[in-house]
Amino acid sequence: MAGTELTNLRSPRVKAARRLTKRAFREQDRKFLAEGPQAVREALKLDGVTLELFTTAEAELRHPELVTQATLQGLPVHRASGEVMAELSQTVTPQGLLAVCRLVHVPLDEALDRALPREPKLVALLAHVRDPGNAGTVMRAADAAGADSVVFTDASVDPYNGKCVRASAGSLFHLPVVIGAPVAAAVARLKERGLRVLAADGAGKHTLDDVDLSGPTAWIFGNEAWGLPDDVLALADDVVRVPIYGQAESLNLATAAAVCLYSSARAQRVP
Amino acid sequence: MAGTELTNLRSPRVKAARRLTKRAFREQDRKFLAEGPQAVREALKLDGVTLELFTTAEAELRHPELVTQATLQGLPVHRASGEVMAELSQTVTPQGLLAVCRLVHVPLDEALDRALPREPKLVALLAHVRDPGNAGTVMRAADAAGADSVVFTDASVDPYNGKCVRASAGSLFHLPVVIGAPVAAAVARLKERGLRVLAADGAGKHTLDDVDLSGPTAWIFGNEAWGLPDDVLALADDVVRVPIYGQAESLNLATAAAVCLYSSARAQRVP
Repeated sequence: MAGTELTNLRSPRVKAARRLTKRAFREQDRKFLAEGPQAVREALKLDGVTLELFTTAEAELRHPELVTQATLQGLPVHRASGEVMAELSQTVTPQGLLAVCRLVHVPLDEALDRALPREPKLVALLAHVRDPGNAGTVMRAADAAGADSVVFTDASVDPYNGKCVRASAGSLFHLPVVIGAPVAAAVARLKERGLRVLAADGAGKHTLDDVDLSGPTAWIFGNEAWGLPDDVLALADDVVRVPIYGQAESLNLATAAAVCLYSSARAQRVP
Repeated sequence: MAGTELTNLRSPRVKAARRLTKRAFREQDRKFLAEGPQAVREALKLDGVTLELFTTAEAELRHPELVTQATLQGLPVHRASGEVMAELSQTVTPQGLLAVCRLVHVPLDEALDRALPREPKLVALLAHVRDPGNAGTVMRAADAAGADSVVFTDASVDPYNGKCVRASAGSLFHLPVVIGAPVAAAVARLKERGLRVLAADGAGKHTLDDVDLSGPTAWIFGNEAWGLPDDVLALADDVVRVPIYGQAESLNLATAAAVCLYSSARAQRVP
């Protein structure tokens, strides 16, 4: 724990962290920001992921165990003024804890190999998903449903976006995430690895209720507003929709994804 | 269609609509604002719900059918300047269409009677839900899952909150909504009407996978951060959790609600 408090918004340390709020700099520096006690706790559980910690005096009192843990791991812990934290934070009410982490994504095959000795049986693939809150909520649901990996294709939002990290509620650190995979190549590889690829789309002929989901499955989820483009639908083994029993036109993307992933999780476990 | 454009932010008409962004005035005036083409379209489908329409010139060109429909129904349609629309809108990028509507909620028994001649079989009850986006997303999921009603207990957010209306994506107009019901009284009445009351909570002994959901069910969903208080849990026939197969600590409230509601919908339909 540094004895002095960071109060200067233009100090090199603050500026180096601040620039990680921009995607281009995250890619260049190979680092991102994980904000809030939940994200920091999950980041600290992984070897070598957290690089430094920023904390306010107040947050230190609320979460002494996290500061202790970071210190024991030999990480630089910077006490920051409320003003500096507000500058680094991407939330309206900063929670006073923020970790600088190295990027955690892995290549697709490495992600799928993490399931070994068994073969991967549940994967979520995000194609053209643009809303970071939705993408993070899908990551969290995929983690909860026991998915083996979440794949962000080249046309999807950056999972290291602050809103996405926050919405994932730590799940970004729980399951292997793949980034920037071209969708056709990713689908081909998933099929080679024995997964049946299902596109979730309102245009599906089949509903969740009439497909057998007991086998290994990769779900493709698309854009919030306009679903999946035809070329992506054509890659899938089948197009499946969540049945709408009432008058709603559709479901929110993250909601639909959770219903699909949990249907798979259940079908794979409950005889 | 009025020939002149409303440009004065302080005109009585604009002020009368603007005050409906506050809950106290919505209750006093018995009116609320429904923003965006989707909400306006659904509002116009219901007899006597829409009272007046505000539109920008641009939105009129994009959605002429909605303006025509409002005019044919004899509703006052006010062309508003972009500045006036921004004043009335509760979104960062106003979509240029905004309806003033009368409140649509009904007493609990009336909501349940809408299912007649059959008995109600799926109800969502929100207790202590505070986030309007979450509440609206639950309404949308309940509608999609074919629920008979959504009940907001006295300690929950106002469903006429602009964010909630928007997140509901029209569902506020689709299924009967009940407001301000004391939770114990609502639960008692739901039981009397033949519904088994299940509290969705991470503390549940049973998971979704090991309860029989084929009968009529009312789900209680609680607060985003701390779940359901003991006195509410005690009212339920059973406490059920969504199984977590991975490392996630929990699910987002709206996600968990969708998974529960769809599990019920499926169990009630698929043998």
